[in-house]
Amino acid sequence: MNRVYNFAAGPAILPEPVLQQASDEMMNYRGSGMSVTEISHRSALFEEMLEQAQSDLRDLVSIPSNYKILFLQGGASTQFAMVPLNLMRNRKADYVMTGSWASKAAQEAAQYGDIKILASSQDRNWSYIPDVSDLPVRPEADYVHICQNNTIFGTRYKELPDTRDKILVSDMSSCLLSEPLDVSRYGLIFAGAQKNLGPAGLTLVIIREDLVTEDVLPGTPTMLTYKTHADHNSMYNTPPVFAIYMCGLVLQWLKGQGGLKVMGERNTRKAALLYDFLDQSMLFKGTVEPDFRSLMNIPFVTGNDTLDKQFIKEAEARGLHNLKGHRSVGGMRASIYNAMPEEGVASLVKFLTEFEEEHKNDKGL
Amino acid sequence: MNRVYNFAAGPAILPEPVLQQASDEMMNYRGSGMSVTEISHRSALFEEMLEQAQSDLRDLVSIPSNYKILFLQGGASTQFAMVPLNLMRNRKADYVMTGSWASKAAQEAAQYGDIKILASSQDRNWSYIPDVSDLPVRPEADYVHICQNNTIFGTRYKELPDTRDKILVSDMSSCLLSEPLDVSRYGLIFAGAQKNLGPAGLTLVIIREDLVTEDVLPGTPTMLTYKTHADHNSMYNTPPVFAIYMCGLVLQWLKGQGGLKVMGERNTRKAALLYDFLDQSMLFKGTVEPDFRSLMNIPFVTGNDTLDKQFIKEAEARGLHNLKGHRSVGGMRASIYNAMPEEGVASLVKFLTEFEEEHKNDKGL
Repeated sequence: MNRVYNFAAGPAILPEPVLQQASDEMMNYRGSGMSVTEISHRSALFEEMLEQAQSDLRDLVSIPSNYKILFLQGGASTQFAMVPLNLMRNRKADYVMTGSWASKAAQEAAQYGDIKILASSQDRNWSYIPDVSDLPVRPEADYVHICQNNTIFGTRYKELPDTRDKILVSDMSSCLLSEPLDVSRYGLIFAGAQKNLGPAGLTLVIIREDLVTEDVLPGTPTMLTYKTHADHNSMYNTPPVFAIYMCGLVLQWLKGQGGLKVMGERNTRKAALLYDFLDQSMLFKGTVEPDFRSLMNIPFVTGNDTLDKQFIKEAEARGLHNLKGHRSVGGMRASIYNAMPEEGVASLVKFLTEFEEEHKNDKGL
Repeated sequence: MNRVYNFAAGPAILPEPVLQQASDEMMNYRGSGMSVTEISHRSALFEEMLEQAQSDLRDLVSIPSNYKILFLQGGASTQFAMVPLNLMRNRKADYVMTGSWASKAAQEAAQYGDIKILASSQDRNWSYIPDVSDLPVRPEADYVHICQNNTIFGTRYKELPDTRDKILVSDMSSCLLSEPLDVSRYGLIFAGAQKNLGPAGLTLVIIREDLVTEDVLPGTPTMLTYKTHADHNSMYNTPPVFAIYMCGLVLQWLKGQGGLKVMGERNTRKAALLYDFLDQSMLFKGTVEPDFRSLMNIPFVTGNDTLDKQFIKEAEARGLHNLKGHRSVGGMRASIYNAMPEEGVASLVKFLTEFEEEHKNDKGL
């Protein structure tokens, strides 16, 4: 078996031991004589699996007891509607614009009420996070929404905004579980699973109990009401069993690694390895202002499209895959989620160094 | 490895060769060096997989070219809202009541408009399908909704209703792909995957092109608009890659078996084996009126709760699992989807016969 280093932004690399276990027990889950893809969501087998995943997540993230954990479907894009449908009692919500996903979230919410943009980093192609220490949050705003790590542009919040006691809603699709987290500062956290949590097809929601209510906007579909899922412990209808199973294996792997503190330190080392290289390179440079650099998604460019393409192609030949940058930034992007080993980043830096040595004269350096 | 016969109603049994392939290539999909759970939905690998699944489904079911195939999330329960949100232009829709799922669909649609119940079989605990040859369909109805196979009660439509040229919407969660189908008679077909199509976490929608429109009810979430997914070939946001992959393997397995005509004949034989036994048994009896018996879900009872429980327990000890009936019917239920081999049903009938021989005196027969 010849595995590669997969730097894709999501769906993304998963821990090898997790994949190995999924492969090993695909035909027979825990001696049940059934595949995990075949077991009933009403079975004790599944209920144990779900409980274990919830309890492991609660342990890992230190989720307070007044927060519910929901396993949903439909991705962050569905949350862009669920959040206003469930929380927008005054039909007013305030958004901080830091890229494509924050913008899509605000656009969806605008169907349901009056949206105020509190701050934006669009002026410099989303390459930084705006100052959020003194935002003009409206007194009647139902919540303040942020996208905490911006997968496409490679930025992240260093400090959470001062929401002036309004509910903080955070899209953590690309950073949840990458480092320790103080859940009590949020009202609602959501994340598509396909970056740090498991395979695509699962959305994780962590929601403060008092926000789970029947008092939703008129016409809210039953399936888009948090209370539906909270009341039935994520089993109102058939949940995505296999994705929850894989997420459970990832959570156990994370515990085995030492938890989020260890992961945060490792992720900081991994990112530093790449940023340190980029900061001294004469050929490659990062596109994000240093204070707001993501630990998970690192875009960089040479400034020369032909060279960028050549780099991406040659990297792939060396087993460094999916380094092509998003079209909004161009160049390259290395997504280095929890499951990317330090050796993967070291291999990338080694090849960057070699490529620079070989091509430094191409730019007339 | 010791596999059992799994008679669960869904998630349900899947073909062994499909599970074996999923296990074999879990660590390395088609020599990519990545798991199928890790590949990007923007990769050529995924696009080929999606196209192949769509084209295999179109072949198998003979889906006309003016129908779109969508791979969605959220289960049939989400379709209960999507259907009215997208199709209810006059805010009127007509439903035929044949059990829990038809009722839930109607209840959800009632949020958005005026629902008329055209017919119901509630009077005899949903044990038959009402006469649908001359329904009082309203001239201004936007569509007529049916649940074509009722998983809980074990009934199915022998003939489709006369909708008086109104759009027919059918929930085919538990019968799609079990026998040949004339798609041109429907406006929209939906099905949760977790019975005949693949693992939980995927919803299949087959929709006539002219019903895919921007003209949806105000406030319809972007993710609940069929056009969003049709315009982006089910890749508006990250689709459930692994579930689509498994569904693709199931479709290839079905083609290898000879297609839906062969499956329909096999399913008819399998069901007949069990119904023939039940019809002559002095201990067990089917709960559904003969004309409306499902090929997929077969509820039966002894009329004695203690005996039922004993049967379920002893069956499990013989590798015949998940035969417990739904609480609305009691007794037993055997779900015998495509992936259940004829030998599985034969084993069940053999044990039913033995159990009857042993217990015929318990009832004083």
